[in-house]
Amino acid sequence: MKQVFEITDKNIIKEVLDRAEFGTLALCENSKPYSLPINFVEIDKEIYFHGSFSGRKANILKKNNFASFSVVEPCAFIPSYFSSNEGLACPATQFFKSVIIEGVIEFVENKKQKINALTKLMQKLQPEGNYKSLSENEYKKIIDATCVYKLIPSSIRAKFKFGQHLTKERFDMIIKHLEQRGSKIDRKTIEMMKRFRDEI
Amino acid sequence: MKQVFEITDKNIIKEVLDRAEFGTLALCENSKPYSLPINFVEIDKEIYFHGSFSGRKANILKKNNFASFSVVEPCAFIPSYFSSNEGLACPATQFFKSVIIEGVIEFVENKKQKINALTKLMQKLQPEGNYKSLSENEYKKIIDATCVYKLIPSSIRAKFKFGQHLTKERFDMIIKHLEQRGSKIDRKTIEMMKRFRDEI
Repeated sequence: MKQVFEITDKNIIKEVLDRAEFGTLALCENSKPYSLPINFVEIDKEIYFHGSFSGRKANILKKNNFASFSVVEPCAFIPSYFSSNEGLACPATQFFKSVIIEGVIEFVENKKQKINALTKLMQKLQPEGNYKSLSENEYKKIIDATCVYKLIPSSIRAKFKFGQHLTKERFDMIIKHLEQRGSKIDRKTIEMMKRFRDEI
Repeated sequence: MKQVFEITDKNIIKEVLDRAEFGTLALCENSKPYSLPINFVEIDKEIYFHGSFSGRKANILKKNNFASFSVVEPCAFIPSYFSSNEGLACPATQFFKSVIIEGVIEFVENKKQKINALTKLMQKLQPEGNYKSLSENEYKKIIDATCVYKLIPSSIRAKFKFGQHLTKERFDMIIKHLEQRGSKIDRKTIEMMKRFRDEI
């Protein structure tokens, strides 16, 4: 059964991944978790990122390549009094979009694939261009020295919390408060609330 | 030896934790990582958060309470041409602050401690107040049904990347470009660059 906050539309999930500058990668080292933020790009439903061949991340991955990767788009904080007149703290919450991908990580050895991943990463983060193509000879040494990884998902779960579970009365009360507070993130949150309310 | 991006000042680290609305918690379940975003509050060098008594997070923690917790404050993206005239893509980077805490998680059973943690969480996220004190009887049932966790750190590592490693020429070139681009995050990034450059 689909949960109330669950999003399964692949295009909507891709939107979150394409907009996010970074995500948090979690690995396991001898049953102890290790986590770190990384810049990344999604290509054909896989997550690509890069690093050095040495270091803790690479060393762990040689022994255990299971990974969990989280991307969050935080939205408005919703104070308790935005949705209730009873004066209790409990309704306080934060609206957000999150995507959690579980799978295994492989080292990308193929040079063309490495260049393609680094090119797509640049296109995502520096869309205005203004640099020489990664396929030029000048980059050969540095690309050889760069470790490119890809996370191959076994599961992708997206949770968008925008008050889908609330009664119409509480939902409308939040919209009114957000309109009053009126920051950029509040206006964006209203838009998301309306969009994902319709999808239930 | 202190790394070039490493921050050890406890007050500066606390600032990041106090400003962050959420962090990413990573756990290990049978040698596979599990990660999820959580709202949290730091109290006396420990990280408090809450959830339900059932669910995957609680179930994993009963078997393996090692945790890694990451908090990120993303700052300006620095296009490659902000620090170099050679036209290569390589200098492209993102400046950021990150704090990664490793340790073990305990269930908080003591009621006073639970109320204190939830109170501090509310004070952090809803500083304007406007709710009844969590110590009131009205909350008894809901607090009993709420699982409060604390992460007791064994290591806290903070990495602030603000161009501390660059030559003066490249550093100044980035400042100039950020001033020209001039967004709110660019202006904040300039401030951080100057602040943490001085600390080398």
